Amino acid sequence: MAKKKATKRTTSNKKVQLSPADRKTLKSLVGLANDIVKTADRGRAPHLDIPSRSLSNVRYNKAKRFIEMGSGKNRRELFNLSQAKSYMQTVLVSSGCKQLIEQDKTTSIRGLYYLLKHTIEGVKEETFDDQSDCDPVIEDAEVMLNSLREELHLYAQKKGDMVGEIVLIDRGDEIDCSHMGSGGYGIPSIVEPEIIEFKECDAEFVLHVEKDTVWQRFNEDKFWRTHKCILTHGGGQPPRGVRRLLYRLNHELKLPVYCLLDNDPWGYYIYSVLKQGSINLAFESKRMAIPNARYMGLRSKDYERCGLTPSVTIDLTDTDVKRAKQIAKYPWFEKKKPWQKEIQLMLKNGFKLEVEALISKDISYVTETYVPERLEDQDFLD
Amino acid sequence: MAKKKATKRTTSNKKVQLSPADRKTLKSLVGLANDIVKTADRGRAPHLDIPSRSLSNVRYNKAKRFIEMGSGKNRRELFNLSQAKSYMQTVLVSSGCKQLIEQDKTTSIRGLYYLLKHTIEGVKEETFDDQSDCDPVIEDAEVMLNSLREELHLYAQKKGDMVGEIVLIDRGDEIDCSHMGSGGYGIPSIVEPEIIEFKECDAEFVLHVEKDTVWQRFNEDKFWRTHKCILTHGGGQPPRGVRRLLYRLNHELKLPVYCLLDNDPWGYYIYSVLKQGSINLAFESKRMAIPNARYMGLRSKDYERCGLTPSVTIDLTDTDVKRAKQIAKYPWFEKKKPWQKEIQLMLKNGFKLEVEALISKDISYVTETYVPERLEDQDFLD
Repeated sequence: MAKKKATKRTTSNKKVQLSPADRKTLKSLVGLANDIVKTADRGRAPHLDIPSRSLSNVRYNKAKRFIEMGSGKNRRELFNLSQAKSYMQTVLVSSGCKQLIEQDKTTSIRGLYYLLKHTIEGVKEETFDDQSDCDPVIEDAEVMLNSLREELHLYAQKKGDMVGEIVLIDRGDEIDCSHMGSGGYGIPSIVEPEIIEFKECDAEFVLHVEKDTVWQRFNEDKFWRTHKCILTHGGGQPPRGVRRLLYRLNHELKLPVYCLLDNDPWGYYIYSVLKQGSINLAFESKRMAIPNARYMGLRSKDYERCGLTPSVTIDLTDTDVKRAKQIAKYPWFEKKKPWQKEIQLMLKNGFKLEVEALISKDISYVTETYVPERLEDQDFLD
Repeated sequence: MAKKKATKRTTSNKKVQLSPADRKTLKSLVGLANDIVKTADRGRAPHLDIPSRSLSNVRYNKAKRFIEMGSGKNRRELFNLSQAKSYMQTVLVSSGCKQLIEQDKTTSIRGLYYLLKHTIEGVKEETFDDQSDCDPVIEDAEVMLNSLREELHLYAQKKGDMVGEIVLIDRGDEIDCSHMGSGGYGIPSIVEPEIIEFKECDAEFVLHVEKDTVWQRFNEDKFWRTHKCILTHGGGQPPRGVRRLLYRLNHELKLPVYCLLDNDPWGYYIYSVLKQGSINLAFESKRMAIPNARYMGLRSKDYERCGLTPSVTIDLTDTDVKRAKQIAKYPWFEKKKPWQKEIQLMLKNGFKLEVEALISKDISYVTETYVPERLEDQDFLD
């Protein structure tokens, strides 16, 4: 009976052994607090200097080939009526993250919000009004401490799966991704080296597909075995854990990352974020962007190349057209003729194509013909 | 180099060994086609009798304790101008499923749509205008053939993860869910016994939580080890694969299923679907609904019981109030005093509570206090 097992545990009190990475993050957090104390001891007004996350402080670094933040900073002062609340919120978030690291526990950004939300004693003011009041402060803490949110022990949504020719150690458990059946290994949201270690890898590349449904087709055909690769998906726009894992596979194991996405502005955008990082979270690019990721398809020319029929095309909406034109003007696409040609052809076609449209050729056309041919020809967009 | 591996495969031509379940489904499909031929040979007008999926043909079966379809049927005739198209679509979908089973391949409902979509020869008519034109026909095929969509080799969205004291065989691979690290086993969308076999189980119950973020907390605390259970989530409203797997764990392994959901109308609704099935897809209840599933919480009384603060409550919206009143009138909640009390108290409170709100007590309050106490007291709603 389950009943008998219901005894209280005391893991909260257990002695925690911190990893070197955690010790480093903790040092930054403690340093931050010490600086505040020192400033106060000297009779000066406490303040925080936070790298600016505004659009004007974001630029595309041509040498590094990703979006990064400039050197602009904003000062946030305690004794400034318009800054006091966000100053205190920043210190509060930092203290919450310190607590998480010291207990060696992780939580979601929703969890941190609940952990820290309370009515301030003596007044009716809430520390945070709602989640949207807390999220930007978490991002401020990330840039200020130069730590990814995962290093602050915060996790994001968990979605995406992996299978293929790799064995990894996840919190002590050995996971052989070549024996994961039809389900696969659910990619965690924190994949830092202290948690996920690569043990053995026979893969020669990573195939990242957009959707779980396409992933299932590739896994069922055991594509990753025939082609010696790792197969991932991110359930649409990949969450941080998937992006960071792809980054690590690319940087540490030197595996090329090929992206199989829909031939539409959304597919282009997913590729852009994987490759150059996102404009909103430019500070994470250096540990998430994969500048040498390659776009395998679908391509606008696939309608003709693969002999598809009008039945499987989807008309572009006005929003699609607008979005495509915006993407064409991204600095990292603007100077690339093949990308300009790609986007122009989609606009000329007047329609988009989903990866699933290839099923109209044959159920396994995508795994047996389309991707093998692209690999053979090394025909990618960069 | 990946290039060298890019040789074409010929799995399409391989000899397929069908499972007994597949042979049974195939027999229904062939039987359907034979009946049509026989009718035509006799010079009669071909027709299909399809169990009616309209609301008027859905009822709550008190003895079985789930929502089921009545015996109403609709006749669909080929030689009837208003029915000819849907008649042909139904035959087309059936033939697509036959093709999938014969090749021992599965696809998504999106995939089947693309597989079957084409312009009919000689006319300008499309077999399907869009996905929404195809989906109800797939549901018709399910009820007509008395087969779950998974048995027709169609998969739904894949989301949700599992860890815990169970070893299963997934397409020949042994998956020990007690050694899945922080990531877990990604629950497949087809979990029929031919694909997923239960090998060993030391678990005494299943704890199903609503969200991936809550699941991560339980997995990190290795709750399933201390409490000998299986831990699942369905990323919100659980997809079909998760529901079917919970059903199998409950029916075949006789494991109680406890649900930890938010204290809001959406949480109540998720519980209702898990337990009684959904009104829209009543025909699947008998193989998905879990009438003895139990609602563990959160409960409206938890605000007081757990000593939560006003800071962590979320005001009910007008939609919430309306939805709660609707749910209170569901036949399977209407006669149950504890449920009426539960819903009334939420309305009286005027607020809802997320599971994450318990973090305001302590990061691991939910795993170390809340759930253990509910298990100890066997305090559930049914």
